[in-house]
Amino acid sequence: MAIEHNFRLTVDGTYKRHAPAGSQSCWLHFTAAAKPDLEQLLSSLSIHPLAQQRLMNGTDIPTFDEYEGCFFLSLFIVRPSGRTVNVRLLTGSQYMISYMDENDPLVDQVKERLLNHRGQALYPGYVLYHFLDLAAIRFLQVIDQIADRIQTLERQVFATPFANEIGREIYRMKTHLHELRQIAEAQEEAIKMIRHADLPYINQETNPYIEEVASRFSRVPAALDAFKESLSAIFDLQLSLKSDHMNVIMKTLTLVSVIFLPMTFIAGVYGMNFAFMPELKWRYGYPFALLLMATVAMLIALYFKRKGWWGETGTKEK
Amino acid sequence: MAIEHNFRLTVDGTYKRHAPAGSQSCWLHFTAAAKPDLEQLLSSLSIHPLAQQRLMNGTDIPTFDEYEGCFFLSLFIVRPSGRTVNVRLLTGSQYMISYMDENDPLVDQVKERLLNHRGQALYPGYVLYHFLDLAAIRFLQVIDQIADRIQTLERQVFATPFANEIGREIYRMKTHLHELRQIAEAQEEAIKMIRHADLPYINQETNPYIEEVASRFSRVPAALDAFKESLSAIFDLQLSLKSDHMNVIMKTLTLVSVIFLPMTFIAGVYGMNFAFMPELKWRYGYPFALLLMATVAMLIALYFKRKGWWGETGTKEK
Amino acid sequence: MAIEHNFRLTVDGTYKRHAPAGSQSCWLHFTAAAKPDLEQLLSSLSIHPLAQQRLMNGTDIPTFDEYEGCFFLSLFIVRPSGRTVNVRLLTGSQYMISYMDENDPLVDQVKERLLNHRGQALYPGYVLYHFLDLAAIRFLQVIDQIADRIQTLERQVFATPFANEIGREIYRMKTHLHELRQIAEAQEEAIKMIRHADLPYINQETNPYIEEVASRFSRVPAALDAFKESLSAIFDLQLSLKSDHMNVIMKTLTLVSVIFLPMTFIAGVYGMNFAFMPELKWRYGYPFALLLMATVAMLIALYFKRKGWWGETGTKEK
Amino acid sequence: MAIEHNFRLTVDGTYKRHAPAGSQSCWLHFTAAAKPDLEQLLSSLSIHPLAQQRLMNGTDIPTFDEYEGCFFLSLFIVRPSGRTVNVRLLTGSQYMISYMDENDPLVDQVKERLLNHRGQALYPGYVLYHFLDLAAIRFLQVIDQIADRIQTLERQVFATPFANEIGREIYRMKTHLHELRQIAEAQEEAIKMIRHADLPYINQETNPYIEEVASRFSRVPAALDAFKESLSAIFDLQLSLKSDHMNVIMKTLTLVSVIFLPMTFIAGVYGMNFAFMPELKWRYGYPFALLLMATVAMLIALYFKRKGWWGETGTKEK
Amino acid sequence: MAIEHNFRLTVDGTYKRHAPAGSQSCWLHFTAAAKPDLEQLLSSLSIHPLAQQRLMNGTDIPTFDEYEGCFFLSLFIVRPSGRTVNVRLLTGSQYMISYMDENDPLVDQVKERLLNHRGQALYPGYVLYHFLDLAAIRFLQVIDQIADRIQTLERQVFATPFANEIGREIYRMKTHLHELRQIAEAQEEAIKMIRHADLPYINQETNPYIEEVASRFSRVPAALDAFKESLSAIFDLQLSLKSDHMNVIMKTLTLVSVIFLPMTFIAGVYGMNFAFMPELKWRYGYPFALLLMATVAMLIALYFKRKGWWGETGTKEK
Ligand SMILES: [Mg+2]
Ligand SMILES: [Mg+2]
Ligand SMILES: [Mg+2]
Ligand SMILES: [Mg+2]
Ligand SMILES: [Mg+2]
Ligand SMILES: [Mg+2]
Ligand SMILES: [Mg+2]
Ligand SMILES: [Mg+2]
Ligand SMILES: [Mg+2]
Ligand SMILES: [Mg+2]
Ligand SMILES: [Mg+2]
Ligand SMILES: [Mg+2]
Ligand SMILES: [Mg+2]
Ligand SMILES: [Mg+2]
Ligand SMILES: [Mg+2]
Ligand SMILES: [Mg+2]
Ligand SMILES: [Mg+2]
Ligand SMILES: [Mg+2]
Ligand SMILES: [Mg+2]
Ligand SMILES: [Mg+2]
Ligand SMILES: [Mg+2]
Ligand SMILES: [Mg+2]
Ligand SMILES: [Mg+2]
Ligand SMILES: [Mg+2]
Ligand SMILES: [Mg+2]
Ligand SMILES: [Mg+2]
Ligand SMILES: [Mg+2]
Ligand SMILES: [Mg+2]
Ligand SMILES: [Mg+2]
Ligand SMILES: [Mg+2]
Repeated sequence: MAIEHNFRLTVDGTYKRHAPAGSQSCWLHFTAAAKPDLEQLLSSLSIHPLAQQRLMNGTDIPTFDEYEGCFFLSLFIVRPSGRTVNVRLLTGSQYMISYMDENDPLVDQVKERLLNHRGQALYPGYVLYHFLDLAAIRFLQVIDQIADRIQTLERQVFATPFANEIGREIYRMKTHLHELRQIAEAQEEAIKMIRHADLPYINQETNPYIEEVASRFSRVPAALDAFKESLSAIFDLQLSLKSDHMNVIMKTLTLVSVIFLPMTFIAGVYGMNFAFMPELKWRYGYPFALLLMATVAMLIALYFKRKGWWGETGTKEK
Repeated sequence: MAIEHNFRLTVDGTYKRHAPAGSQSCWLHFTAAAKPDLEQLLSSLSIHPLAQQRLMNGTDIPTFDEYEGCFFLSLFIVRPSGRTVNVRLLTGSQYMISYMDENDPLVDQVKERLLNHRGQALYPGYVLYHFLDLAAIRFLQVIDQIADRIQTLERQVFATPFANEIGREIYRMKTHLHELRQIAEAQEEAIKMIRHADLPYINQETNPYIEEVASRFSRVPAALDAFKESLSAIFDLQLSLKSDHMNVIMKTLTLVSVIFLPMTFIAGVYGMNFAFMPELKWRYGYPFALLLMATVAMLIALYFKRKGWWGETGTKEK
Repeated sequence: MAIEHNFRLTVDGTYKRHAPAGSQSCWLHFTAAAKPDLEQLLSSLSIHPLAQQRLMNGTDIPTFDEYEGCFFLSLFIVRPSGRTVNVRLLTGSQYMISYMDENDPLVDQVKERLLNHRGQALYPGYVLYHFLDLAAIRFLQVIDQIADRIQTLERQVFATPFANEIGREIYRMKTHLHELRQIAEAQEEAIKMIRHADLPYINQETNPYIEEVASRFSRVPAALDAFKESLSAIFDLQLSLKSDHMNVIMKTLTLVSVIFLPMTFIAGVYGMNFAFMPELKWRYGYPFALLLMATVAMLIALYFKRKGWWGETGTKEK
Repeated sequence: MAIEHNFRLTVDGTYKRHAPAGSQSCWLHFTAAAKPDLEQLLSSLSIHPLAQQRLMNGTDIPTFDEYEGCFFLSLFIVRPSGRTVNVRLLTGSQYMISYMDENDPLVDQVKERLLNHRGQALYPGYVLYHFLDLAAIRFLQVIDQIADRIQTLERQVFATPFANEIGREIYRMKTHLHELRQIAEAQEEAIKMIRHADLPYINQETNPYIEEVASRFSRVPAALDAFKESLSAIFDLQLSLKSDHMNVIMKTLTLVSVIFLPMTFIAGVYGMNFAFMPELKWRYGYPFALLLMATVAMLIALYFKRKGWWGETGTKEK
Repeated sequence: MAIEHNFRLTVDGTYKRHAPAGSQSCWLHFTAAAKPDLEQLLSSLSIHPLAQQRLMNGTDIPTFDEYEGCFFLSLFIVRPSGRTVNVRLLTGSQYMISYMDENDPLVDQVKERLLNHRGQALYPGYVLYHFLDLAAIRFLQVIDQIADRIQTLERQVFATPFANEIGREIYRMKTHLHELRQIAEAQEEAIKMIRHADLPYINQETNPYIEEVASRFSRVPAALDAFKESLSAIFDLQLSLKSDHMNVIMKTLTLVSVIFLPMTFIAGVYGMNFAFMPELKWRYGYPFALLLMATVAMLIALYFKRKGWWGETGTKEK
């Protein structure tokens, strides 16, 4: 693919030229800075107004559209930060026009691959493949990152099950997963549509490559679904651990209350100031009262023991 | 499209005329006030009685029906208030009849677009497209509004997790989302049916426009699904925060109860009025009792500390 | 359709005659009382034994079966009480046999419609349509009733969130919705099967009518699904409100306990009967003790205030 | 169908003979006791080794497999106890071989039906139908049993909402439903596969019978799904009732604690032994103290009343 | 299949030879140690670069890809430990190349089976079948193991419902099931794709074998789904049992508190030191006070009994 032959004469701008020399087709990449040039180029080519508009404005989620003589593909890649960025590709039989708002190493990686495989640079289908492939690699890297974060979260729940922060972290990750999930599902569908579409510009030779990247990308939504279920399981686990905790706290409170309330009551009784209370005069009234309290406490403790409410929580309730 | 040529002679009413002059087809819009005229018009045209009935009475959810020589489309748009309003369109090869109960800026916006693109005004398919496009834009605006409200709710949960109002707001939004979801899903399906139907009145040229609006509209049910999951996640988060809170409250209650109950019991014991209580006569009986209480309190506090029940809730339970 | 021409001569019974005169086809309706006549009629016609059996015994859920020369449709209608009732229809090219165990205004409504549109009475397809249409109307009426009951329930939760009765009402409605849901889903499918089946007795003209009723009926299972989600949302809301309530109760208990336990302890200390307790002899010992108690109470209250546990629950936890 | 003509000469065993005399096809039933005979028979016929293996070993879930010249159907029936039992059927154009590990009345019921309808006994398709029909009847009987048990459970929750046993019963039923569900879903699919398969041995005449049993059987997985939702609803109901209960308990505890803690504190204050406590000397000190306590208690009770925490739980919270 | 005829002359390595002698096709197995030989072999054959790459690098989940002249199948087997291991198979009309990173008895089992059925060794389809069959057997064994572990867990919940460990075990199993589920679902789909693909190298004879293993393998994802539901049911059961437990604890606390708080208050009243307290002087003041306390306690106990809060929790609440 080369840019010189076709458009150089009519289009004049600041877009980067990635096309290796000596071919009949070309790949042009534009960023926000070169948007006016792109607009000029598009109006000089007979591209469907809707395709032009989509290329200029982008889409909210990945999309694949066929037009007469070309097709438009709106991809998303994920930055290591987890933010998604839109890549727009317009592919015809002799050209590929790509657009990204920001500079991203992705474009240089595609260029480098094409320079390494000059044979592939002859067909827009290969350029498309490298974009899809690098987008898939980016997503799979973020998938790995998320998997690591979930494992960290999991260890954290086992280590400090009552940390407030965990509930918030689960919420934040869930929200992030939802967003990625919608992008990934639409992207999976868009890639499948390329496979099923009857596109003459994607030649016989590149088909297995598109197939392969589609099969690899299908791992992404599946993994995101699994993450969501993992987060739910972690949430359930934490809930269960917290309820166990509350259980132990309540048992402690109940045990102490139930033992000391009757003892304090007995002490209160013998603290009354009635003129005639025979026990107060007894020689062993005091030890008797203490013994009475101890007996009551013991009986209650025994009851608790027998109910299985005292000691290890892991023992059977009777 | 023009109204003058075909129907002017037979139909006489208060409906608005939006059709630009000089064409073979016309677009007629009716509101509740012009319902009798619409009825008269329909009976003068050979339209299927079911189509007539649907146009007059509307439908509960978006619907697409094909009849011989025409098709009926019942759309819904959302007002900024979130309320949905029914738009009914009957499209033939030479005409488009639209009906709305209330006045809505939508109709003037379609008219304005047609006047700006007079070429498009020749085909009913373009009128249809502008209706669908403006309906999609309305939905996407409401989607943005809801997204903002959910973000506000989210910040509110992090700021004041125990606000009663949040549970109620989540409920209200869920209910609203359900309603929008049903409308949006049916509308998505109705738009897809236009694409897949074999309609001669929607010419080759307008097809990509319908495709494009269908692809854009498909964002709506997906976003509503995502919102529903976000609300569930916020509900779970609040539940988790509340349970953390209850945990802290219960721990405080337990700690104070369990420390003071034994101390009060000891005070109660030495408040008894037995004639023979040796400790009461001791020179240092009072400091001894205070020391005893302090020791008991300290031991219990230590037990709590070692259990990890005292202090930060984020520390590991032992 | 007329009953006189074909069967009058051979069949003699108590079934009602609804067929308008002067046509080649007839519609016969039977109830439990006329079951013997129906049995006699069926054996005199060459109807598939399975179709006969189904007509006599009915089905648990709506069903559509094709046989050679006829098809069997088992419909369900809902009574205003919410109870479902089975309607069985056997349709051939020249006849329609209907059966219901009980008398229901439905049959008279179909008859009245046919008498009003005598042209339609010529084809069994129209009779079928009126049965389907009236069944759909009945379901949609019950849907409206349920929607009202859910709104009442919703208002009730906001008004008296702790009413025991609400949980029970939610349960009862859920159970009822499940039952209706299964009937409605099967009925939707049965109606769709009529549309897709290749039936010669349903002529070209009646097809759009069947389509229309199918489209209208598809609202029923969708609405039932939405109700189910509404009930779940109400349940969640009530759960959330109850947990808020418990929160407030527990805070009150904790606040009062935690303030009075230390004060009571101090009172207990100065209620001890030690011979040597210097404070008891102080001139201002009593005010000192009261001040000590008040100070402790104040400090605890302050701690609670600063933690945000006192006062409005809607304020931020610190 | 008859056993005598084809195989009698070569096969010699203990299998039961159910085939009525005078036909060209036969049905042979084997149980575990006759397994060696079955093995011998299979090796003498040219049946696909996989079909032989499946017939001998059975399958975990219902399965339908086509082989050249025959097909294998593995059915499951339910015993009244809820246990599922495997029935294996190998059907060719001239024979049907059935196998069950245990004796079950099912086989005799099929035999009896064939003897009553001797015309049907000529085709393996009818034998198959009777097996399927009786299997469906068995499943539907168990469905009825489960429905009854769920209604009992429901009444139990309303009567004794705090019975421990209910949670366990729900669990046991859920587990049982899961198992039945998997069997029933696979069986439904297997029956559908017979309908869709192009089997010459199932003649034109038996097709409607297979259709009918398929339509009847489809009720089973639907009912099992509904039961699962009912159990979840009962679980939710019980949870809600328990939480209401806890609410009432906690309110009682809080009310009593919050009323008596301040009163006991006042009593404690006047139980202190300070030398200078003016109130103790007052003429009406004691009634004053009692009045003070009563006032405090009244104020608290009033506060509770006004908050709506006292009395009926069904009243509005303020 | 034999290795000697085709490749022996050109390829020279350490791969194992499993091909029985005297056939036209061969099966070659490689492990990590023989990776260089595999690379050399692949480059000497005209295999699609993507197929080569997949064979060398493996896939994350089971995959099936068709290339011109060959197809690639990436399978997973489970070790008894529950860990999954990747098996990669490249199948052409005359050869089968398999690769596993580690040594596993699987390969020897396939070899042994082929040596026992020498006729089967002539076709790559049979080798494929044995791989699939052994993979299915491995999965089904692990399914049995998991079923046993779940039954143990179930018994544990009934025996010791408050064991902390159960929540953690449920979490661990859920996580493991998710992973297996994704592998199993993809493997099921890959096996189905073999069935539906139009592969000339899998001859007519092996087709039923692939069908049979597909049908058997479909049990795996279904069982994993059922396990997931069982774990959720166990989680719910434990939650329910824990809430019952908390209920009983809270009732005990409430009962004891509510009985002793008023009694202690009365004791506190008669412990006050007012100069003028008539009751203190009464002859029977002390018994009167004790009686008063007992009466209050009795009334409260009666109230609890009547409310149904005392005694068995399984009784009806009034
Ligand atoms: Mg998906
Ligand atoms: Mg989708
Ligand atoms: Mg999945
Ligand atoms: Mg998936
Ligand atoms: Mg899905
Ligand atoms: Mg739908
Ligand atoms: Mg959808
Ligand atoms: Mg759906
Ligand atoms: Mg989805
Ligand atoms: Mg979606
Ligand atoms: Mg859905
Ligand atoms: Mg889904
Ligand atoms: Mg779905
Ligand atoms: Mg269904
Ligand atoms: Mg549905
Ligand atoms: Mg729906
Ligand atoms: Mg569904
Ligand atoms: Mg669904
Ligand atoms: Mg199903
Ligand atoms: Mg399903
Ligand atoms: Mg299935
Ligand atoms: Mg369903
Ligand atoms: Mg179903
Ligand atoms: Mg499902
Ligand atoms: Mg899948
Ligand atoms: Mg699935
Ligand atoms: Mg599946
Ligand atoms: Mg399943
Ligand atoms: Mg499924
Ligand atoms: Mg699913």
